Amino acid sequence: MTVAPVIALDVMGGDGGPAVTIAAAEIARTRHPEIRFRLYGREDAIRAELAKAPLVARDAVVVHTDGEILGTDKPSQVLRRARQSSMGLAVDAVKAGEAHAAVSAGNTGALMAIAKLGLRTMPGIDRPALAALLPTAKNDSVMLDLGANAECDSENLVQFAVMGAAFARTVLGLATPRVALLNIGEEDLKGTDELKHAAALLRSADLPMQFAGFVEGDKIGRGDVDVIVSDGFSGNIALKTAEGTARLVVELLTRAFKSSIFSMFGFFMSRGALRSLRSHLDPNAHNGAVFLGLNGLVVKSHGGATAQGFANAIRVAHDLVVDDIAHRIREDLDNFQAHRTAPPAVQAAQ
Amino acid sequence: MTVAPVIALDVMGGDGGPAVTIAAAEIARTRHPEIRFRLYGREDAIRAELAKAPLVARDAVVVHTDGEILGTDKPSQVLRRARQSSMGLAVDAVKAGEAHAAVSAGNTGALMAIAKLGLRTMPGIDRPALAALLPTAKNDSVMLDLGANAECDSENLVQFAVMGAAFARTVLGLATPRVALLNIGEEDLKGTDELKHAAALLRSADLPMQFAGFVEGDKIGRGDVDVIVSDGFSGNIALKTAEGTARLVVELLTRAFKSSIFSMFGFFMSRGALRSLRSHLDPNAHNGAVFLGLNGLVVKSHGGATAQGFANAIRVAHDLVVDDIAHRIREDLDNFQAHRTAPPAVQAAQ
Repeated sequence: MTVAPVIALDVMGGDGGPAVTIAAAEIARTRHPEIRFRLYGREDAIRAELAKAPLVARDAVVVHTDGEILGTDKPSQVLRRARQSSMGLAVDAVKAGEAHAAVSAGNTGALMAIAKLGLRTMPGIDRPALAALLPTAKNDSVMLDLGANAECDSENLVQFAVMGAAFARTVLGLATPRVALLNIGEEDLKGTDELKHAAALLRSADLPMQFAGFVEGDKIGRGDVDVIVSDGFSGNIALKTAEGTARLVVELLTRAFKSSIFSMFGFFMSRGALRSLRSHLDPNAHNGAVFLGLNGLVVKSHGGATAQGFANAIRVAHDLVVDDIAHRIREDLDNFQAHRTAPPAVQAAQ
Repeated sequence: MTVAPVIALDVMGGDGGPAVTIAAAEIARTRHPEIRFRLYGREDAIRAELAKAPLVARDAVVVHTDGEILGTDKPSQVLRRARQSSMGLAVDAVKAGEAHAAVSAGNTGALMAIAKLGLRTMPGIDRPALAALLPTAKNDSVMLDLGANAECDSENLVQFAVMGAAFARTVLGLATPRVALLNIGEEDLKGTDELKHAAALLRSADLPMQFAGFVEGDKIGRGDVDVIVSDGFSGNIALKTAEGTARLVVELLTRAFKSSIFSMFGFFMSRGALRSLRSHLDPNAHNGAVFLGLNGLVVKSHGGATAQGFANAIRVAHDLVVDDIAHRIREDLDNFQAHRTAPPAVQAAQ
C-alpha cells in the first residue's frame, strides 16, 4: 500500500478520554511516522491535548462534535445519537473513504451497532465477528467471535475461521495459522450439529490455514492453536471467564503473599518476576479487538486502556490497513467458494 | 434420615484405581462412621486394598466384576459394556434401591450415558444437569449444567436453577442462595430468547432462592452469586476455561519465579503462601460433581483425584443423601408449578 494509512479516532471514548487517546496517537506516530489521524470529539479538549502531542498536531484533521455515546446509553439512544457522536463520526469517516480504519475505546455494544449499521457486511460474509488476541503459555492466540453474534450457524463459523486466519497472518505474522473450533470435547461426535458441520467444511477446504479440529476451554491457555473460532455467546463467556479467573488467581496470590512476614519478604524479593507475570497478562499489551467482515475496519480498545494500550489498538488498525486484510479475506472466501463444488453433506461423507 | 447412607463405589474408575478409591472410602468412614459401602470391581484388587482399610473392610459388600469402562471406549461400546462394568453395576445398585448414591471417577461421558439410561429423569425434570463447586474469591459457588446438555430451553434452565439452589442449600449450607443465569451481559436485553424467558420465569417465581438476574463470565470468580446456571455448552466452556486459565497463570508464575536468583529466593521465602494458593485452587478440594434430576444420585469424581479428593466426592454424596436433595427438588418444583397459573408470557409482562 502506497498511500499513508489514515486512522479515525473517537477521541472522547474510554475512561481516559482525550488525554489518553491523543497521547496514544503521539506514541503511534513515533512508531509509524506515516500514519495520519482524523480526530473526532470536542475541539477545545482536543486542542488542549494536541499542545502536548507535536507529531500528531502537525497534520491531524480535527472534526468537532459535542455528541458522545455514554456507557449508560440504551441501544435505542445509541443509534439516535450516533450521527452526532465522536464514535459515529469516526465510523462514518471509514464509510466515506476519508479514513482506512476507526479506533474507539467507547461502549462495545454501541460501537458494534454503529459499525454494523454504518458499514454493513462485506460480500461473502453474512455476519461480522469481533476478534481479539489472548495471552497464552506460548504466543498470543486470536479468538473470535467474542460477542457480535449470540447464535451462529456452520456457514458463519466457517466465515469466522477464514477471517480469524487472515487476522492471525497479519497480526501474528503466521503463514498458515492453526485454526480450531471451540467445543465441549475433542472427539468428532461432540458438540452441536453446527459445529460438526463447520468442522466437515473446514476439513475439506483448501485454505491458508491448518485446521486442527476441536479445542476445549482448558486448552485455550496452552497456545496449541493460533485461532479459536466460536459463536459469540461461548466466545464471550470464554474470554470473560479467562479474564475473571486470571484476576482471581492474581488476587489470591497477593492475599497469600500478605499472609505472613516471610511471604511478604519473599514477595519483595520476587517483585521483578511478578511484574513480568502481570505484564504478560496485561490487557493493555493485547489491546485492540477488531470487527472483521465489515466494509471497513473498526478497532475496539479496552475502555480502561492506558496511552500505551490505546497505542497498541492503533497499531492493530495500522497493521491491518497496511496488510489489506479485507483483500486477504475476500481472496480466501472466493477460493473457498470456488472449490466447494459438491454440497457440504456429500463433502463431509467423503 | 434414620437409615445409614449406603454408597456404591465404582472401585476401578479413575487414574488411581482401587488404591485411591478404597483409601478414600476409609477416610470417608472416619468422617462419617454411619456410611456403608458397596464396592464394585475386581475382587482380588479390592480385597488387597481392604487389608489396608479396616473400617471399610468391616462391613463393605464386595461385588466382583471383570468389566471396566475405559477412557478410550466409544459411546456405542460404553452402553454395551455397561451391564458388566464396575461403573454400570454401581449405578444399577442405586436403581435397584441397594444404594442411595453411586460415586465414580471414571469417564464423564460414559457415566452420564449410563446414569441417564439407567435412572431416567425424575418427575418434573426434563433433563438432568451436571453440577459442581467452583473456587471463588469468597466462598465456593455451584455451577450447572457443566456438559450434560449442549442445548437447553428456558424450562430446562429454570429446572437447573431449582436443582442448583437445592444443591447449594445442602452443600454450601445457605438458606436462600443467590442464583444467576450466565449471560454475555447483565442488561435485560442481552442474550438469547431462552435466557430472557428463563429470567422472566425465575423473577416471578416464589422459590427458596434470591434470583440475581444475569452474570457475566468475568464475575464468576468473584463469588458474588452462589449458583450459576447455564446450558451445558457454555457451562462446560466456562468451567474448562477457568481451569485452563488458573493453570496458565500458575505456570507463568512458576516460570517468572525461576527467571532470576532473586526471585528464586523470593519463591523459597513465599512457598507457604503459594501452597495455600494452590490448595485454594486444588481440584481435589472441590471434588464431586453431581448429576442432578435423575431418579437416584450419581457423583462424578475427577479422574486424577487423590484419596482425599475422592473422599470429598464421597462426602458430597453422603451430604446429599442425608439431606434428601431429591425431596427438596421435588418440593420446590411442585411449588413453582403450582404458583405458575398464568402463562409465562403474561407473567413476564406484569
